[in-house]
Amino acid sequence: MKYAIKFAYDGRDFSGFQRQPDDRTVQGEIEKVLSIIFQEEVALHASGRTDTGVHALNQVATFCPAIFIKEEDLTRALRRMLPRDIKLVQLCRCSEDFHPRFDAIGKHYRYICSLEDHLFERPYVHYLKVMPDMERILRAAAFLIGVHDFRAFSNRRRGERDTRRDLWAIEVSQRKERIFFDLYGDGFLYRMARVIVQYLLHVGRGKIDPEETPQILASGSREKTRLCAPAHALYLMDVYYRFDPFA
Amino acid sequence: MKYAIKFAYDGRDFSGFQRQPDDRTVQGEIEKVLSIIFQEEVALHASGRTDTGVHALNQVATFCPAIFIKEEDLTRALRRMLPRDIKLVQLCRCSEDFHPRFDAIGKHYRYICSLEDHLFERPYVHYLKVMPDMERILRAAAFLIGVHDFRAFSNRRRGERDTRRDLWAIEVSQRKERIFFDLYGDGFLYRMARVIVQYLLHVGRGKIDPEETPQILASGSREKTRLCAPAHALYLMDVYYRFDPFA
Repeated sequence: MKYAIKFAYDGRDFSGFQRQPDDRTVQGEIEKVLSIIFQEEVALHASGRTDTGVHALNQVATFCPAIFIKEEDLTRALRRMLPRDIKLVQLCRCSEDFHPRFDAIGKHYRYICSLEDHLFERPYVHYLKVMPDMERILRAAAFLIGVHDFRAFSNRRRGERDTRRDLWAIEVSQRKERIFFDLYGDGFLYRMARVIVQYLLHVGRGKIDPEETPQILASGSREKTRLCAPAHALYLMDVYYRFDPFA
Repeated sequence: MKYAIKFAYDGRDFSGFQRQPDDRTVQGEIEKVLSIIFQEEVALHASGRTDTGVHALNQVATFCPAIFIKEEDLTRALRRMLPRDIKLVQLCRCSEDFHPRFDAIGKHYRYICSLEDHLFERPYVHYLKVMPDMERILRAAAFLIGVHDFRAFSNRRRGERDTRRDLWAIEVSQRKERIFFDLYGDGFLYRMARVIVQYLLHVGRGKIDPEETPQILASGSREKTRLCAPAHALYLMDVYYRFDPFA
């Protein structure tokens, strides 16, 4: 029996996604609830991890319990039992072949900045004191789009060899006091979304010339992209599959 | 030297307002910062406490340090040192006679309900599965306005003798999926705002007849007003003074 779930979480009170023996994590909390429902240990397999503090609107995962529970009943049980900061969006049975990580063909991340420092938004957006130069940001972003080795725009993770990714699009938009960075690509390296956003903000503040971007990409070095934007304003918006298990 | 401050806080991660030896409280955090700035113990006196989980947009308090620091410098120091979930709104020197609690002539509380269950709003609004009957709510609210003994609509607090209060107004309004309860009065008993909101929601769900309200008020009993609405959706919006120290 294989189930696929789509779920959202508020990353604020989690020590990241991945199960940890002593910390509260998203995977840990969901597995705990599943294990109570199915009365056995149930492992969750997600499309990927997110860092501590990062949120998700449509994370995808699967699990394979030994017994069958009707989708409606399982949905209702999960909705009732999941903690307040995890929300089940959708649940369905899926093919035994479906693998949320290996079958993912792309992802969408959103980073939210705000030019106003609202107290109740502090845990969810990144406050900018000064409006960045959008034209410069767009010029730099254009150089990042496409297939590149993104080593200069990510942290190294042990065992990660292939650092080429296809960044399909970067949309930068403003609505009232908010500035959105929407990144779409076939995959994201460790910290890649946050390093790119921080770099674009730097460019937007006039600290780096947008035209330097190709050289920085080619250098493969983090010298000019040392920082990464804070985690609490990053959202995993969507995971794309050729055959959507939820369709 | 006496200073008055107006400040906002996100009640989520505090064990209420009032200083506690072992818990993180709003008063405790502000006093900690003040004591670092002034290098002596500085006590904060607020317009009143708020319960665990309750938020504030414009809480008012005073403190009297031994030394003088210029308003701009003190403002800057506080803004830099206060934790992320407390935000200084305004700071000024005030008359030695000004007392934020005894001089308050009224308060405004807002309670926010939502008909949509948005994950990231869960810590800040009270989700309603069903739209309540606004006409019934307004009929019941009309009976509560004015000078009454609000014993039936509050928890008893030790030492509280006079339970008469003047509830100036209750505004109930809807904007998109949100329903706002705005309560204005010369003072609020312990839990009074939340007991009133919970009662009005009960009336709005058809559980109690709006016309029973005068009897319930007169009874002084909590029999029909046993529950109180959850704390995390209540906001202290404003404290009113005859002579506004911030004007």
